[in-house]
Amino acid sequence: MRPPLYVTRPLLPDLAELNILLESVWASNIITNIGPLHQKLEQELRQVLGVPTAMLFNNGTIALLAALKLFKLPAKSEVITTPLTFAATAHAIDWNGLVPVFVDVLPETLTIDPAAVELAITDKTSAILGVHVYGNVCELDALQRIADRHGLKLLYDAAHAFGTTVDGTPIASFGDGSAFSFHATKLFNTVEGGLLATKHPEDANDIYFLRNFGIKNEEEVVSIGINGKLNEMQAAVGILNLALVDEERRQRSVLREKYLSFLSKIDGVLCQPVQPGVSNSEQYFPIQIDAEIFGRSRDDIYEALKLENIFARKYFHPICTDFEPYRDFKTYSVHNMPYVETVKTRVLCLPFHSGVTDEDLKVIERVFLAT
Amino acid sequence: MRPPLYVTRPLLPDLAELNILLESVWASNIITNIGPLHQKLEQELRQVLGVPTAMLFNNGTIALLAALKLFKLPAKSEVITTPLTFAATAHAIDWNGLVPVFVDVLPETLTIDPAAVELAITDKTSAILGVHVYGNVCELDALQRIADRHGLKLLYDAAHAFGTTVDGTPIASFGDGSAFSFHATKLFNTVEGGLLATKHPEDANDIYFLRNFGIKNEEEVVSIGINGKLNEMQAAVGILNLALVDEERRQRSVLREKYLSFLSKIDGVLCQPVQPGVSNSEQYFPIQIDAEIFGRSRDDIYEALKLENIFARKYFHPICTDFEPYRDFKTYSVHNMPYVETVKTRVLCLPFHSGVTDEDLKVIERVFLAT
Repeated sequence: MRPPLYVTRPLLPDLAELNILLESVWASNIITNIGPLHQKLEQELRQVLGVPTAMLFNNGTIALLAALKLFKLPAKSEVITTPLTFAATAHAIDWNGLVPVFVDVLPETLTIDPAAVELAITDKTSAILGVHVYGNVCELDALQRIADRHGLKLLYDAAHAFGTTVDGTPIASFGDGSAFSFHATKLFNTVEGGLLATKHPEDANDIYFLRNFGIKNEEEVVSIGINGKLNEMQAAVGILNLALVDEERRQRSVLREKYLSFLSKIDGVLCQPVQPGVSNSEQYFPIQIDAEIFGRSRDDIYEALKLENIFARKYFHPICTDFEPYRDFKTYSVHNMPYVETVKTRVLCLPFHSGVTDEDLKVIERVFLAT
Repeated sequence: MRPPLYVTRPLLPDLAELNILLESVWASNIITNIGPLHQKLEQELRQVLGVPTAMLFNNGTIALLAALKLFKLPAKSEVITTPLTFAATAHAIDWNGLVPVFVDVLPETLTIDPAAVELAITDKTSAILGVHVYGNVCELDALQRIADRHGLKLLYDAAHAFGTTVDGTPIASFGDGSAFSFHATKLFNTVEGGLLATKHPEDANDIYFLRNFGIKNEEEVVSIGINGKLNEMQAAVGILNLALVDEERRQRSVLREKYLSFLSKIDGVLCQPVQPGVSNSEQYFPIQIDAEIFGRSRDDIYEALKLENIFARKYFHPICTDFEPYRDFKTYSVHNMPYVETVKTRVLCLPFHSGVTDEDLKVIERVFLAT
């Protein structure tokens, strides 16, 4: 049996190099509380992400919680989002005492449909939370216009869009904030981790306080905050991983071309669309399988790959509105049946990291070409 | 100048031993998501803490957030707590859409005063959140009786009470739950970290879901949850530190006796009371300085120690009700002036860890005896 192949494989620094950084941490006795490595990594990420405010968190969900608090949204107000996302997006809304409202996605990019957003707006709406799913960029201009017209905050879940640029502009420059995830499964990881970025320099202080109990100094707590701090061990991993990201991204970009060389020729298999001016985040390799055209379903392919010890992911399936906490929530859509209901039967993320070999690709190609 | 001496110093495992565990983590590619080291540490802590349900978290504040969610308290209901605590206690209440209500503390143990709790109960009260401050144990029986009589949940912030027992019964067996902190400053640390313990085996599932997005399996999300997972690197530190805790505790217990040998003879300096049947958590060495009797104030001693490069902490001063977010909150008390207002001018935590030398103690003694 071949060793199991998963969709992601964590980027990990050389342990000997990590050990050198850990020696300095151990020697200083400063192992957390926004120590020197945390500060260094945050500074580097501010450069990489190209925004004035980029604040590290212990994970992406806590970054989302903090973003929603930053906006001071009224209790029980509604936040419009997509059901085609990781459960954390909706959970963060609910946990903060807000109400998620789900709307449909666009057929190609699978990002939130601005026309559906318009349908969902009520006098209780306070924010839109778009998701750059698979690194596909949301309809930035349309969403901003809607937000402006209705006086809504516009937040992005950028967990899949690390390093993405749009016509050279960093993704985190759009809207009122972008939450990133640096979880093990992400291109850039700090084991667990996250970051909240905004284009407003003045947000940095507020986010700092949200992340660290509102502590200003030894004698002052100026606002409400929780513990969103990343520790020095994880900051050390981040510093080393950041130096490896470009090479991992390059290898994934080559892998993408190899996938496309056979998948793009298959009728009924739709690969990730190219958005003009948008750089690919190289986070995932999602496809949509139209069973009627292709002749076999997404689930067939998933199972066939599994027999080869290759674990693709039906990502995202089920979608948020299938989950118990959100089962009774409707999905606003311009269609009779929300398109996302079709998408969830079609999407599949294939193994996508530098550990995928040509041998693996041959097996995957064989599975797709088998009749 | 002597090197700076702080109240705490993180217990840290040998880096070479840590490296061996990290090698296994790196080899497995399982660096988080409740991996084998997380499971091992959690299992060990369940034994150490002597309760059926003991679930690790990424920090103590997130454990508190999860505990308050576990109880399904009505939105905007009131949680009675003490102002003599770290800001996180009150912030966790507020962040979850609940209202903190502050009540006075008892003069000796500085824990929440049951008589003041009674005064604060309204028809909006849903829970009591007691704090075993400095490892002093709350009035367990009195609080439980009040909770039972009024149908309130009873939660404990046990951040200072790791390993504490009462007549041999583990501290986490009391009330409906206990949140621990494994922050760097705590006797037992996982760099950052926390744990939620309860006496109810059936809570384990619910807490598991609160900690990990409500994910039951690849296809089911059964409840609302956030990301409270501790990663494998920190679990590795925890496993190694757990083996060091007994020796650190022993050394602190010797240090405590040395402190007592000179401080207990000083009029106006009140050392931590001995509670019958209660084991000392050896987390802090707090004193109360009565300036009228002692002749010098707590702040005088604090500054005098600072001149010697010894950084005691006015812990907790200011108290929660001094902080901007809670400044307009009253403190319920059986006294005209809440006793906690006096306490906050008197408490001082002295350096308390195995790195405090006899030389250091001589300097501290000299500062106290100087006139």
